[in-house]
Amino acid sequence: MTYCVGMMLNKGLVFMSDTRTNAGVDNISTFRKMFFWEEPGERSITLMTAGNLATTQTVVSLLEERSKSASERDPSILRADTMFQVAQLIGDTLREVIANHAKAGQEADSSFHATMIVGGQIGDGEPRLFLIYPEGNFIEASYDTPFFQIGETKYGRPILVRLYEPDMSFEQAIKLLLVSFDSTIKANLSVDVPIDVKVYDKDSLSTGRTFRVNYDDRYFREISEGWSDALRVAFRQLPEFEFPQK
Amino acid sequence: MTYCVGMMLNKGLVFMSDTRTNAGVDNISTFRKMFFWEEPGERSITLMTAGNLATTQTVVSLLEERSKSASERDPSILRADTMFQVAQLIGDTLREVIANHAKAGQEADSSFHATMIVGGQIGDGEPRLFLIYPEGNFIEASYDTPFFQIGETKYGRPILVRLYEPDMSFEQAIKLLLVSFDSTIKANLSVDVPIDVKVYDKDSLSTGRTFRVNYDDRYFREISEGWSDALRVAFRQLPEFEFPQK
Repeated sequence: MTYCVGMMLNKGLVFMSDTRTNAGVDNISTFRKMFFWEEPGERSITLMTAGNLATTQTVVSLLEERSKSASERDPSILRADTMFQVAQLIGDTLREVIANHAKAGQEADSSFHATMIVGGQIGDGEPRLFLIYPEGNFIEASYDTPFFQIGETKYGRPILVRLYEPDMSFEQAIKLLLVSFDSTIKANLSVDVPIDVKVYDKDSLSTGRTFRVNYDDRYFREISEGWSDALRVAFRQLPEFEFPQK
Repeated sequence: MTYCVGMMLNKGLVFMSDTRTNAGVDNISTFRKMFFWEEPGERSITLMTAGNLATTQTVVSLLEERSKSASERDPSILRADTMFQVAQLIGDTLREVIANHAKAGQEADSSFHATMIVGGQIGDGEPRLFLIYPEGNFIEASYDTPFFQIGETKYGRPILVRLYEPDMSFEQAIKLLLVSFDSTIKANLSVDVPIDVKVYDKDSLSTGRTFRVNYDDRYFREISEGWSDALRVAFRQLPEFEFPQK
């Protein structure tokens, strides 16, 4: 499993992904699920992946290779004119890889499916954020749906739904996402640190800030331990239940 | 979908279930998912069901019928000597019903599966709580796993995991469960009020208290609206994130 969230703020985009992959509970590894393509001053694109690791790695390698070699077919992810074209390109590549694996005739216990979040900004365009389905089609984040989750999405969703604000600072958004990740990590063995974080400032068209959060990260420990206490306090503030009078 | 929780406290048992059933999003109805069998002074048994409605209704009807007619095979749910036997009886009935439906040769888009929570107390025995799988086998709640959820379990789980305490009062447990239900209802269309609640006082061997919570319930509205605010306050209390110095 996996947990990744891409979030659109007035100030820009925030991406967060865990790094655990597993084939059964007895075969777990750490893999990066966040990938970047950038041309400073011109474009900044971030991709996060969930699902079959062979599929997602092949998609990323193909995107990578095609962005480097001029002889490969156009447009590459570094030449697409808009974020919409980038999403289309990734969707097509994803569908192609899944179809290739499936038609080999090998039957696998688990499917070859994968889901992806891609976001970024190109030239004069606005920052945009897309969720790409295994079928290769995609939806875009909007005012009503300002963030996407992939992988193990449910445990960490209620807190995002209740506390997300479009005008949050990046610092607040990261704090919120870390609470959401902590809830997910506590509930599902197959989601775990280290957590990769990327912040993209609107109109910067640059790398932005990226870093990794681990268990020994002091702040993550404070959030993880502090949140249970904070919830307890919040819970106490709610009015007490009284049994209905018979 | 469905959401039901059975919780074991030092003081007794609490059961909570929603009432929405759906066959697709365009065909929703309200059905009770909580059922009781009682002999005052001798036994009190509560059953909650999730899954295929035809399956769960048949199981409940069979249990009901067999508890009334002396000619049906023994033991009935009103005669079983222990809660363990009750769980076994329900598990067997569940497996039998699923097998019957499946062998009719009809293929359904959705499976005939169902999962159940049964809890209660018989005579001198302790209160016990079981989770019954579609295969008819079951597990029992213990100090380490003091509550069971069935149906749409994930959205409402983190808050239960963080705030459950075995020595909670019934009032606190109901408040906690209503927060968990509210988070689930807000996230999944196929879980909804009215919510059925049943509280069983340890060693009372009686009906206990049952009631139904609806949207126009003042307390549920206070919880539902108050929790977002309380979370916001709790979130503010957590230390603020600062970007790592480069």
